[in-house]
Amino acid sequence: MGRNRGTDVTDGPLRVQIVGATGYGGLGILELFLGHPGFEVSSLLARDDAGRRIDAVYPHLAGRCELVVERPGPEAVGSGADVVVFATPDGVAQGHAAALARSGIRFLDYSGDFRFRSSGDYAFYARAHPAVLDERHQAEELLERAVYGVPELSAGSLREAPIVGNPGCFAIGIILGLAPLFEGDLLADREVSVDGLTGSSGAGKKPSAAHHFSHLSDNVVPYRVFAHQHVVEAELTLARLGAGDGATLHFVPHLLGTTRGILSTMHARLKRPTSRDDLLALYRERYDGEPFVRVLDGLSTLKGTAGSNYCDISLATSADGRHVVVIASLDNLMKGQSGNALQNLNLMFGLDPAAGLGRLPLYP
Amino acid sequence: MGRNRGTDVTDGPLRVQIVGATGYGGLGILELFLGHPGFEVSSLLARDDAGRRIDAVYPHLAGRCELVVERPGPEAVGSGADVVVFATPDGVAQGHAAALARSGIRFLDYSGDFRFRSSGDYAFYARAHPAVLDERHQAEELLERAVYGVPELSAGSLREAPIVGNPGCFAIGIILGLAPLFEGDLLADREVSVDGLTGSSGAGKKPSAAHHFSHLSDNVVPYRVFAHQHVVEAELTLARLGAGDGATLHFVPHLLGTTRGILSTMHARLKRPTSRDDLLALYRERYDGEPFVRVLDGLSTLKGTAGSNYCDISLATSADGRHVVVIASLDNLMKGQSGNALQNLNLMFGLDPAAGLGRLPLYP
Amino acid sequence: MGRNRGTDVTDGPLRVQIVGATGYGGLGILELFLGHPGFEVSSLLARDDAGRRIDAVYPHLAGRCELVVERPGPEAVGSGADVVVFATPDGVAQGHAAALARSGIRFLDYSGDFRFRSSGDYAFYARAHPAVLDERHQAEELLERAVYGVPELSAGSLREAPIVGNPGCFAIGIILGLAPLFEGDLLADREVSVDGLTGSSGAGKKPSAAHHFSHLSDNVVPYRVFAHQHVVEAELTLARLGAGDGATLHFVPHLLGTTRGILSTMHARLKRPTSRDDLLALYRERYDGEPFVRVLDGLSTLKGTAGSNYCDISLATSADGRHVVVIASLDNLMKGQSGNALQNLNLMFGLDPAAGLGRLPLYP
Amino acid sequence: MGRNRGTDVTDGPLRVQIVGATGYGGLGILELFLGHPGFEVSSLLARDDAGRRIDAVYPHLAGRCELVVERPGPEAVGSGADVVVFATPDGVAQGHAAALARSGIRFLDYSGDFRFRSSGDYAFYARAHPAVLDERHQAEELLERAVYGVPELSAGSLREAPIVGNPGCFAIGIILGLAPLFEGDLLADREVSVDGLTGSSGAGKKPSAAHHFSHLSDNVVPYRVFAHQHVVEAELTLARLGAGDGATLHFVPHLLGTTRGILSTMHARLKRPTSRDDLLALYRERYDGEPFVRVLDGLSTLKGTAGSNYCDISLATSADGRHVVVIASLDNLMKGQSGNALQNLNLMFGLDPAAGLGRLPLYP
Repeated sequence: MGRNRGTDVTDGPLRVQIVGATGYGGLGILELFLGHPGFEVSSLLARDDAGRRIDAVYPHLAGRCELVVERPGPEAVGSGADVVVFATPDGVAQGHAAALARSGIRFLDYSGDFRFRSSGDYAFYARAHPAVLDERHQAEELLERAVYGVPELSAGSLREAPIVGNPGCFAIGIILGLAPLFEGDLLADREVSVDGLTGSSGAGKKPSAAHHFSHLSDNVVPYRVFAHQHVVEAELTLARLGAGDGATLHFVPHLLGTTRGILSTMHARLKRPTSRDDLLALYRERYDGEPFVRVLDGLSTLKGTAGSNYCDISLATSADGRHVVVIASLDNLMKGQSGNALQNLNLMFGLDPAAGLGRLPLYP
Repeated sequence: MGRNRGTDVTDGPLRVQIVGATGYGGLGILELFLGHPGFEVSSLLARDDAGRRIDAVYPHLAGRCELVVERPGPEAVGSGADVVVFATPDGVAQGHAAALARSGIRFLDYSGDFRFRSSGDYAFYARAHPAVLDERHQAEELLERAVYGVPELSAGSLREAPIVGNPGCFAIGIILGLAPLFEGDLLADREVSVDGLTGSSGAGKKPSAAHHFSHLSDNVVPYRVFAHQHVVEAELTLARLGAGDGATLHFVPHLLGTTRGILSTMHARLKRPTSRDDLLALYRERYDGEPFVRVLDGLSTLKGTAGSNYCDISLATSADGRHVVVIASLDNLMKGQSGNALQNLNLMFGLDPAAGLGRLPLYP
Repeated sequence: MGRNRGTDVTDGPLRVQIVGATGYGGLGILELFLGHPGFEVSSLLARDDAGRRIDAVYPHLAGRCELVVERPGPEAVGSGADVVVFATPDGVAQGHAAALARSGIRFLDYSGDFRFRSSGDYAFYARAHPAVLDERHQAEELLERAVYGVPELSAGSLREAPIVGNPGCFAIGIILGLAPLFEGDLLADREVSVDGLTGSSGAGKKPSAAHHFSHLSDNVVPYRVFAHQHVVEAELTLARLGAGDGATLHFVPHLLGTTRGILSTMHARLKRPTSRDDLLALYRERYDGEPFVRVLDGLSTLKGTAGSNYCDISLATSADGRHVVVIASLDNLMKGQSGNALQNLNLMFGLDPAAGLGRLPLYP
Repeated sequence: MGRNRGTDVTDGPLRVQIVGATGYGGLGILELFLGHPGFEVSSLLARDDAGRRIDAVYPHLAGRCELVVERPGPEAVGSGADVVVFATPDGVAQGHAAALARSGIRFLDYSGDFRFRSSGDYAFYARAHPAVLDERHQAEELLERAVYGVPELSAGSLREAPIVGNPGCFAIGIILGLAPLFEGDLLADREVSVDGLTGSSGAGKKPSAAHHFSHLSDNVVPYRVFAHQHVVEAELTLARLGAGDGATLHFVPHLLGTTRGILSTMHARLKRPTSRDDLLALYRERYDGEPFVRVLDGLSTLKGTAGSNYCDISLATSADGRHVVVIASLDNLMKGQSGNALQNLNLMFGLDPAAGLGRLPLYP
């Protein structure tokens, strides 16, 4: 099992295992690791496509990676790895967590399994999630050791975290977009209306009627109005910021006929009239030094971040300065998933937080 | 000039002239007239492409219309027509209005020229519109004779209207989506946050950087935040509904990488907790008998109305019943422009309001 | 069962039953029938979604059709109908054919079941089709009574045909594009290279990896090179034209990231140098009077036919006049399926071949 | 002016100037240089947007490059640079070529100016190009010193080349796809039918009717049939390969409603029956060691190369082994333009040909 690595990198690259390697999330972080000198992918595990070479599953990897996908049996998880990335649905990582903790192997999980500090919060989330059937957590004793991985909020605690829960793709844009307002107690009522627009890739590679090309192309499809599970983690995170109490998000997700990106437009009332310039200054100070949050002069666009790890934030205020609009754009598979995960991993292992994340947005 | 027709249709089809016939708006209503027994297109006027056959300008019309586009000189406008449709930008119709009025020729205009009842309201609009340079109206004495053409609000007055101002594409969806709430005085503060998503065709056929394929494809581009000119007519219209006073829209338009459709998601607070079922019942009663407003069981989608004259409305309420979300979808070139225009024309001339508007949405 | 109708329409509209009504093909012809005075849809049968209202399955039909989908048991097929449309995959219609024939109910089938005149030709096709497992036809005695439904080639025989096999979506564009060259014996070797580009809707509404939005969006995916089953019917049909013998198509289908349309570009060598003008004249003479074949001055485009029943053909010749390129565009769900089916049905029942097919292309 | 650098890199990174820096081609190579340790961008020249920061012109560059665009006056071109990249239309580089040659500054040009060995060949090309008005070359004495930059054909001569003409985006895919067949004299008649499918970005960022979103979205638009200017360089290049003589391409370009990528499907007859396996072996041997040509087991797809410098080639043969289909896919802005340019520059300066070109395709 693991070599109890976790504080420095003197023995060559860290050996990382990806569980759920053949989904879009596993693919995303595999590609990032291929260009990162600090990590070496030691094994790919996945139920689907086990036994196949990863470049047969994803032909665009031809010439870049020839690893064979292995079955994710209990003995395989963590084997030969310094760190494990679970690019798996809810419920998987929590089943392996205790064994990994005993072996001293740190891990990061993409799902909601380790995004919450208490079993109560987890249960609340689980009830909101249409695909999570059991609201009891299988490793609830480990929840307090897990860190919710928004690097811009938690960089310090990530350094020693044995477990990191990577945020939901909608949640991270909403949190980054609203954090300065909550931290500064600028809102009239800690209540925000959010319209989130997402590309299809957030739903993964499994075919479904909602993501069938002929249906989704040229379409906009609202779904789970007031009922998206990412609201739970965003509200809980924002609620702790500033001196006020609570946070309410009225969230309407919309599925777009495009593959990549999330753009969330957020409306809130300000306690007192404030100019756009003052808010811009506040945001820029807040995110100064953060490599992946850009506070724009102009307006965020979906394609302005596609393929990169950036979250682009822009602001507008009404003529009377009482209503603020925040627009946050990110690539749901990068800052919304794999890119943010790597940023977390870099921080966990004392590496440059931006290492391996230099990809520019693909424009046009 | 005109035969002073306008109240009935006993002499064969009405002769209609389209000014601005080679833009998307002119094309749209031309196509509708081609399938409508009550109208006969007598002439097509346009500055661009004058002298060319319309099926050379738009090859998809091959075999369907061979009219030659003529120059829109002052003497040409209205000539030989019972009714004129101005599918032109702001400022054109008002220049011809007095002459047409003198000749007794009724007309409908696509632009903002005749959407306002007073020169003050018009000036307010003109200042908000980036392309309108002069806030003085050239035919202000006619403004009080014009009807703002939302058939679901003004069917009665359309019957005799000599002039109809066809609404803006964003405005009509917002108005139809919110009218029952304002009429019933259900809102806490007559203030609504609106995120509007629009396809590119609303901007017409003139090439521009914002509508360049390589830029817009797979993109979402917010623009004119708090500053879109359609807000003016929507706020003025909603302000008059119900017993309350005023209406404030916090409107963020977003340009999508798709050609057709507008989907607007609207957030408001309710005076008192209300169930979704109660609101659905209210909306269904309100729009009972309206041929083109559908209050859906499920959620509106962009493609669910594409190519048709429908406006599809759906509703959701928060768990505490205090926050309502209304989602309105329509085809910006149909219910948002040509289709609504024909519905108005049908009403102006005492025809079945749905005549010539039977096209189903094009799905998939 | 049927009223043995089939030669005239004096008793009100023909009652038509759609089998496979909930697929895109069934939906397409249902929508056309809703606007056609000569037909009345008497029942919708489908295995999927039986028991649901069709406007629940397809919400864009709200307000237009409330029929409930019924199970397609053997007793249900043909019941109460003057004519049956099988919008079903290969193998379904042939199982019901004998019973319908005994009842004197005429039918049209979308699949390959009745596109071939002999069991030998059918077996050849069946072996080429990846989804047809049994090369023996279940109703081979009826094959000689079936007509292959290309109205522009077979209008006469359709009038009395008890059974019509509607062509494959690729096949009809290739046949219409090449028929004049084969009929006139203009080709050097009766051999044509064809690159076919198709939207996703031809594959129907069933989700699959190949038609998953995130995969197909912005993609072009060649498939079944030299092995597409539609080649069989196209080669057999072209082989019979002109004085020559045989026909060879080197066909490469490409799946595009768009929903509707097929554009096929066809390359061939001419026996003797010929000008584009001479070929245009030949094509225009050949298709004179055909309501749905347009020989264009310019070049065919995919969107130029979308939503309509047109097949748009354009031509180019090399500088030396020895190489000809034919480009045929059509909407795969209209002239490539439902629209052509209705054209066939109109001819079968002595109606205007263009009845119910007036929809213009949806542009832009 | 330049330091007469050109054979090694011992004094720190090479200073490179980009002329035409604000077009897509300039943007593309700028982005690549930003991630390449061997080059430092010393200046950006462009007529459009001179005086603006490049990250104001392209907001997705925020935080990555703050260079100000300068006017491309004669004195500015080459100033302070070791090497110049002309990302400009036809006719620009040839005007500066003599001065740069006198200063000993090597340059690479994106246009057709230096793709031809003789003024006769250039004149032939100029006549075929709709935007080149003068068929006389302004620096014809330099043509024989220029190398046509297909690295897989000319790696050796690039090392010393003072001038490199970067190939056209269609040409390079066709050449790479067909070179092994011409080199091996495998074709029956050195004649190939080619259907090329291209995204819109090849036409650059200047708005036009052909590239207007509402027109191009969901469309396929054939253009310049038999008349595309890239055919000239591809035919001349292929004609020199193998023992045979000449090369004829029947080329039909098709513009697709997508931004990136070219996929060309090529049909030819083989001299003698050959199996797909034998051809695959031949291609693999031919391209062994080439970092950016991948001969696939499966079929090339457009998205399989998007964002990367790969050219993915796949092959199929007819049942009788006489007809071969070659499918070549590449990103028109990478292997079709900037990526190939950087590969050439790497070779010109003795660097690893793959340096700075490691970007994986962006999938999904």
